[in-house]
Amino acid sequence: MNIADIGEVALIQRLINMARKAGLATTSSALLVGPGDDAAVWRPESGAALSTTDTVVEGVHFTRTTIPWPDLGWKVMAANLSDIAAMGGTPLYALVTLGLPPNTSVADVEELYQGIIDSCREYHVAIAGGDAVASSTAFVSIVLNGSHDGTPLLRSQAAQGDLLAVTGPLGSSQGGLELLTAGEAGVDKAAYEHLCLAHRRPLPRLDEGRTLADLGVRAAMDISDGLIEDLARMMEASGSAARVDAWRVPVHPLLADAFPERALAMALSGGEDYQLLYAAPPTLMKATLARIPEAAVIGSVVEGSPGHISVVDREGKEQMLPHRGWDHFHL
Amino acid sequence: MNIADIGEVALIQRLINMARKAGLATTSSALLVGPGDDAAVWRPESGAALSTTDTVVEGVHFTRTTIPWPDLGWKVMAANLSDIAAMGGTPLYALVTLGLPPNTSVADVEELYQGIIDSCREYHVAIAGGDAVASSTAFVSIVLNGSHDGTPLLRSQAAQGDLLAVTGPLGSSQGGLELLTAGEAGVDKAAYEHLCLAHRRPLPRLDEGRTLADLGVRAAMDISDGLIEDLARMMEASGSAARVDAWRVPVHPLLADAFPERALAMALSGGEDYQLLYAAPPTLMKATLARIPEAAVIGSVVEGSPGHISVVDREGKEQMLPHRGWDHFHL
Repeated sequence: MNIADIGEVALIQRLINMARKAGLATTSSALLVGPGDDAAVWRPESGAALSTTDTVVEGVHFTRTTIPWPDLGWKVMAANLSDIAAMGGTPLYALVTLGLPPNTSVADVEELYQGIIDSCREYHVAIAGGDAVASSTAFVSIVLNGSHDGTPLLRSQAAQGDLLAVTGPLGSSQGGLELLTAGEAGVDKAAYEHLCLAHRRPLPRLDEGRTLADLGVRAAMDISDGLIEDLARMMEASGSAARVDAWRVPVHPLLADAFPERALAMALSGGEDYQLLYAAPPTLMKATLARIPEAAVIGSVVEGSPGHISVVDREGKEQMLPHRGWDHFHL
Repeated sequence: MNIADIGEVALIQRLINMARKAGLATTSSALLVGPGDDAAVWRPESGAALSTTDTVVEGVHFTRTTIPWPDLGWKVMAANLSDIAAMGGTPLYALVTLGLPPNTSVADVEELYQGIIDSCREYHVAIAGGDAVASSTAFVSIVLNGSHDGTPLLRSQAAQGDLLAVTGPLGSSQGGLELLTAGEAGVDKAAYEHLCLAHRRPLPRLDEGRTLADLGVRAAMDISDGLIEDLARMMEASGSAARVDAWRVPVHPLLADAFPERALAMALSGGEDYQLLYAAPPTLMKATLARIPEAAVIGSVVEGSPGHISVVDREGKEQMLPHRGWDHFHL
């Protein structure tokens, strides 16, 4: 049974029913009007409101061979949740738009939606609305609204003298993608499973983001396009430069096992790990490391032209910069 | 110059600069963080928050021959604004996602964005964020956040005995689309221009929505997919049936001139006029008609199976229902 067999109205009804059964689309004192009317109505909590959106397109950000439908749903949610995490906020309500070819099977759409539901349950997000539209190219676009009680973590707040850190190991998602596209020959099973999971089911760092905000950190962003690319954006926004100590960039042991020669390059330029990158003065940095077990200092904010990044080895020798991340329009 | 020549980052920067120059992306006491960080941060006004989203896809909802880029931008905004109007709310912040083939010219994208900016200026909406992604099929997806101080207008609140009304003439957008696709032979210039404008630059009924809410109306929705289709949805949500008096359905004189035999069918089933449909008891209805000059009663809510719509002529004779609107998955 394809979408064309049941039509848009019945498709949307099936998806809303799935969300209702999962307890995610039911109205409450906070979600006054959920899916089915012209707009969602919600009662903002105290503090500021957050809104972010993230979209993935078939053939550009995913293919059906590298990611199963439920994982795709999880992953688009993770990208949005990660944006809220990067502000130090709390996610609340999602609007889910699916663009799908009419010959897509209803079972596939339901699997995709189940992945979104899984993520919403895990992170206590309600589904407040959305849309389903026909499109010859499949895409998923999610909007996530949230709230923030304190001072949001901004890209522009890094200052010279700050140390730079990430909340956990990098490069695993890129490693997973390469195993999924180029094959797994010679890689042991544990590494294969770890890396594929990192690519398909990335974990947004919501607790870490809130911890950083609570401790008084002011500068953070999430790493979605690769450390060097995203760090350059943070430094541009902050009007500073950064030095990365290559040997301090955390790499998961299973990534190092699977790609002994390329793990560091993957950690520097691979995207979609959704760790947080943050900057803080040394004393505050120490406090964050005590609270976030996997966090690691990777360098510091230095004087220099805004956005300039240098990567140095243990001897202080500057390394060639790897490919600087992703720009899908340049494909 | 195509998008592929400048890349995603430069494209987004150009669009943000356009929005900033138009005064639409500047932070304020209400919009604390605009485009460029991980999420937009805004201070909700008193009352409830509204969120809606609407997406159009090339080849499904629009073609480059029937709608120029600036009008497309205007029209997607109108669809979102209309959803806020249909709740009786006030629009505040838009997140704009563009999905575009890499060979799209930058000038075209800027024209599209200019249409969005025009609409945002007209209706006092700030651009709070968004995304640009590569996609072999072009699409535009907008999220609009707003606020509501009173009781939102809901689809489910129509009651038996209520009269039904619309805020203005219907069918003009459909007439415009037919002239744009089938040709304008024999149609006079004034009609052609009026109908094309109705199709390309529809006006969201924000003032009318707020007036209805202020007067105490409780049941409304916007007509995006055609009167009969959308009325059926309202009646399903309200658990009632409706009778439409065909001769009372308002049709613009220029539509009647251009399509003397088909104007009524267009008014009953044509989409994208973005008038509001509402239900109210007779006394309250009278008060709305005094305040909304173009509004017209079109029928009443009656007993019957939920969602059933009958259309009758002056003699009370039931008419054949026209095509019930749009389902793009059935194309």
